[in-house]
Amino acid sequence: MMKEVRNMYQVRTDLALEAREKFEEDNVEIKGVRLDEEQVAPDIHISSVVIETENGAKAMGKPKGNYVTLEAKNMTEEDEGYHREISIQLSKILKRLLPQNKDFTTLVVGLGNRAVTPDSLGPRVVDNLCITRHIIKEFGKYVIGDSCHKSVSSIVPGVMAQTGIESMEIVRGITKETAPDVIIAVDALAARSTKRLNRTIQITDTGINPGSGVGNHRHALNNESIGIPVIAIGIPTVVDAATIVIDTMNNLLDAMSQAEQLQRIGSSYKQLDMMEKYELVRELLTPQLNTLFVTPKDVDEAVKRLSFTVSEGINIALQKEEEQIHL
Amino acid sequence: MMKEVRNMYQVRTDLALEAREKFEEDNVEIKGVRLDEEQVAPDIHISSVVIETENGAKAMGKPKGNYVTLEAKNMTEEDEGYHREISIQLSKILKRLLPQNKDFTTLVVGLGNRAVTPDSLGPRVVDNLCITRHIIKEFGKYVIGDSCHKSVSSIVPGVMAQTGIESMEIVRGITKETAPDVIIAVDALAARSTKRLNRTIQITDTGINPGSGVGNHRHALNNESIGIPVIAIGIPTVVDAATIVIDTMNNLLDAMSQAEQLQRIGSSYKQLDMMEKYELVRELLTPQLNTLFVTPKDVDEAVKRLSFTVSEGINIALQKEEEQIHL
Amino acid sequence: MMKEVRNMYQVRTDLALEAREKFEEDNVEIKGVRLDEEQVAPDIHISSVVIETENGAKAMGKPKGNYVTLEAKNMTEEDEGYHREISIQLSKILKRLLPQNKDFTTLVVGLGNRAVTPDSLGPRVVDNLCITRHIIKEFGKYVIGDSCHKSVSSIVPGVMAQTGIESMEIVRGITKETAPDVIIAVDALAARSTKRLNRTIQITDTGINPGSGVGNHRHALNNESIGIPVIAIGIPTVVDAATIVIDTMNNLLDAMSQAEQLQRIGSSYKQLDMMEKYELVRELLTPQLNTLFVTPKDVDEAVKRLSFTVSEGINIALQKEEEQIHL
Amino acid sequence: MMKEVRNMYQVRTDLALEAREKFEEDNVEIKGVRLDEEQVAPDIHISSVVIETENGAKAMGKPKGNYVTLEAKNMTEEDEGYHREISIQLSKILKRLLPQNKDFTTLVVGLGNRAVTPDSLGPRVVDNLCITRHIIKEFGKYVIGDSCHKSVSSIVPGVMAQTGIESMEIVRGITKETAPDVIIAVDALAARSTKRLNRTIQITDTGINPGSGVGNHRHALNNESIGIPVIAIGIPTVVDAATIVIDTMNNLLDAMSQAEQLQRIGSSYKQLDMMEKYELVRELLTPQLNTLFVTPKDVDEAVKRLSFTVSEGINIALQKEEEQIHL
Repeated sequence: MMKEVRNMYQVRTDLALEAREKFEEDNVEIKGVRLDEEQVAPDIHISSVVIETENGAKAMGKPKGNYVTLEAKNMTEEDEGYHREISIQLSKILKRLLPQNKDFTTLVVGLGNRAVTPDSLGPRVVDNLCITRHIIKEFGKYVIGDSCHKSVSSIVPGVMAQTGIESMEIVRGITKETAPDVIIAVDALAARSTKRLNRTIQITDTGINPGSGVGNHRHALNNESIGIPVIAIGIPTVVDAATIVIDTMNNLLDAMSQAEQLQRIGSSYKQLDMMEKYELVRELLTPQLNTLFVTPKDVDEAVKRLSFTVSEGINIALQKEEEQIHL
Repeated sequence: MMKEVRNMYQVRTDLALEAREKFEEDNVEIKGVRLDEEQVAPDIHISSVVIETENGAKAMGKPKGNYVTLEAKNMTEEDEGYHREISIQLSKILKRLLPQNKDFTTLVVGLGNRAVTPDSLGPRVVDNLCITRHIIKEFGKYVIGDSCHKSVSSIVPGVMAQTGIESMEIVRGITKETAPDVIIAVDALAARSTKRLNRTIQITDTGINPGSGVGNHRHALNNESIGIPVIAIGIPTVVDAATIVIDTMNNLLDAMSQAEQLQRIGSSYKQLDMMEKYELVRELLTPQLNTLFVTPKDVDEAVKRLSFTVSEGINIALQKEEEQIHL
Repeated sequence: MMKEVRNMYQVRTDLALEAREKFEEDNVEIKGVRLDEEQVAPDIHISSVVIETENGAKAMGKPKGNYVTLEAKNMTEEDEGYHREISIQLSKILKRLLPQNKDFTTLVVGLGNRAVTPDSLGPRVVDNLCITRHIIKEFGKYVIGDSCHKSVSSIVPGVMAQTGIESMEIVRGITKETAPDVIIAVDALAARSTKRLNRTIQITDTGINPGSGVGNHRHALNNESIGIPVIAIGIPTVVDAATIVIDTMNNLLDAMSQAEQLQRIGSSYKQLDMMEKYELVRELLTPQLNTLFVTPKDVDEAVKRLSFTVSEGINIALQKEEEQIHL
Repeated sequence: MMKEVRNMYQVRTDLALEAREKFEEDNVEIKGVRLDEEQVAPDIHISSVVIETENGAKAMGKPKGNYVTLEAKNMTEEDEGYHREISIQLSKILKRLLPQNKDFTTLVVGLGNRAVTPDSLGPRVVDNLCITRHIIKEFGKYVIGDSCHKSVSSIVPGVMAQTGIESMEIVRGITKETAPDVIIAVDALAARSTKRLNRTIQITDTGINPGSGVGNHRHALNNESIGIPVIAIGIPTVVDAATIVIDTMNNLLDAMSQAEQLQRIGSSYKQLDMMEKYELVRELLTPQLNTLFVTPKDVDEAVKRLSFTVSEGINIALQKEEEQIHL
């Protein structure tokens, strides 16, 4: 049962970092999972979770691979250049995960529903990319000049309610037809903590996996399903409604153990262990909660800014030589 | 203190019907508030709350006036004509509240943020109106033909984060300049119950009041602030994040009183009265919750359909003679 | 040379009807091309051009096949139901061209650029379709009820400047992956005559051919390139800038032959034959004209209305039994 | 008659620079109109037309005042920072025309139709402004920090077909209600020459005048109609359809005088003077041409880029101290 509850819990976050942190909270050590952290700039923190073994993957509820998380508190605050410093850090992480040969070709996939604001991140990122495949195909790569010499194409597959087709099927069809070397898939995610909303970018070489994303993908978009490496870039723009309740419950439990008036309740509740608490809450959630999501009121501005930052990160990673960027 | 808690609670719903129901739950009788109900079609239920006295207004936390609520379970389901039967019922309610003379002029105000899906209802309703003021002004009303002979204008004022101006100021300025006889203001609302999301239309002659709407208006848009009657049409498209927590808490309390294992907790918690419970929950809510809202994942389709139904209801109410519509 | 000029001329219209009319003007008879006409309603005129032979195809500059044109003057005027009578006529034409077995599956392709108003027809048509493939795949066709029992999917491939990929490649990839029986491709066209703008629907079983559409497709989207039948629905929403000049030139020539003052010019100009005139004008056009298009100022309203009419025509053709529609 | 023809001609351009050039072509000297030119950067050319007298205004068909034109060939080409160098030059021009006191308040008006791509410049510029009025009103100007300390508000009034109200009425109403010191109105313009499309910014202190803009404003938006100074920023994104014809006609006339075969026609046509030619062409234009506009096919990308450049120019002009920008 314990495993069941754990898995039930784990689907609530798309962020490997949050899945990892949960174990820390519970003082559980996980073999096969490595965590590194680095403060690359006063405001930019990078964490790297590597799931190295199948056991680690099972414990984390996520496939083996690299999960890099870039956190910056001021990510959605206004500045002049859509946080170019974040774009540059993102481009460095991407370059580590992208093919190391010089002239690989890339298909960027903007997942999500353009018509639902917090889910429109992927489509919006694609709007601002430097697309070159058609130009290189027609005129050769020397026409474009110093920058933009790698072939980049893109697709916004839409969501299944609009197309009747799984995103994975669309991407696989286009991949077979156009034969890119690598896919970069951009998606809006659900986070466990409201503190991470619109402030965190997760980059992983494990692709997109079932149950992830605001739209809850049903099929994997990864090396196994598509046949080429899939790097996924995700930003949490929503929190699961259940998360909100659980967070408040935890606050309640803390308060209960303190408040004079409530001590009787608190003390008996505290005798339940964490598994029992989660089980309890899950049972109590009304069924509608599963089709709801929670998002900040200024999500339009946040998604606009974030999509520029990510686009520019991809543009730099794909189009510019190391020496051209002054880091 | 009791009154304070009540008010705190009441702001959580924009629907007079829900405010009224709450008192029923508590078995509290409210003087000066009258409720009528009518099943006008197999799937359409109309409730009318009339707040008749200042005492009733205080108890309800809403101004004196008429609040008509149209409920239809299938409102966002697909049909051929965007639920013309609902539009016709809406038009009948509007006609009762609109001026009774033949040639009044109307300004329709689409409140909310077009860029945030659940808040885009008002702007989208305005997109599909039959706008006639400029034609009548230039050519006279006989040019337009049988229908569309009343002068209708519209404005989408935007939200304060975009304009720096209160919607009320914009509407008041345009009202002074163009002198309509009546305003119809359309807005997305927050409901208390997830069951009401996208299934309920509230029509009121009390206008828009502070704290209401997805965007939380700060200034009233009513006869007092604008100088002409303001009829408000609202549809709940979001639920306050706090509401979700409170609903789950209530489920928790019910379960607690039953579950063998939890009876000790439940019984002591039940000794708190409702006011104490709410106070407790409000304290426990994390501050971020106040800037979040909860919305269904298919909110784009729902808002698209609802905006057509409302537009058409307004078009019928303003533009067609009773005998022209075959009800 | 004569053939060359003819071809040069013919690319200026995407409408077979206009290509055919041109020959009539010149009193040229074309073998292998048949024209039928029918007035199906007071305001709806249907013409059918059948190109039966390769010779006919050469003369017309269009592939062999059926080209049905539905003309209705009031197509973009406001009415209650987005011209349901036109949708029904469109559905009848589609049913003649679609597979005749009961349960064929369809992929609808919305061609064009959503961000450029007159080119957004295809994407907007797709927005309002009844999409069923994913539901039928998951629950079987009996879940959906009386209507919507055929499997329909859709894709908006975007334009090459955005994706770097030919629409044809995207559609071919998705077709191989999802195996529909037939494609319906919707596209905004360029007309020769401003009188046809937003008033004409062309339906053809020859698919989309190079050089057609507002965006000037470079690759065919037809049975030959995709491997399944492609029915194309097109509406002219722009006029080629060159067309405007040529129309005005023709007016000039007419006037020249009449105006006392200009008779000397007119008479000598008239001695040129049509080929010479076109050659002359083509040479004189400034190069920029080739990247320009001409569109009416109210194109936003027109495209919005037309997209509903076409969506509903497709929905009726694919989802409803003959006896269910009361024609 | 000569004057009439001239005026008829002059409405075809919204650019004072083009009106001025026309006289140069005709070798007509205009008293009361002064022209200065400056190359401020390798790619940026600034021209300043000052209409000093009523006679000059009559001759030019434009009101007395300053018209500054910034031309940059690469304005819509991709670069990293949306052509910040152009934004800075624009901000310098604005600062010369804006009030010279420190704390004036500004209302920015985004004119045009958001739903028609080439007319969406004004609304899109407003989307990216730094709006501060509501923050300063609530918290005072010291909260915002070093930048953004001037009060800026904005409005997108929409077009008359959508609202039934003249933009001027909406702006006047809001101006009376919120009392800004100055208005900046941004609008898409019609140019005479296709060479100027999307490459030219006109800044004038004479406001918006009847007949100007893609949407053809019917009422002035200037100091006289609104009561406060109105600075207008315009970029030509369309060419009048008539312009296209006239340009081609001119090419025709040139060719006629050369081509052996056509010399007979050309020589007699050349005997007409310019007035007679224009009169002739105007008569020949089909009536539909007046409701059409001509626009490049990549207008979506162009308007997106240009709107950023203009937004940033306004942001710099209003929000930053001279010493903060490193020019």
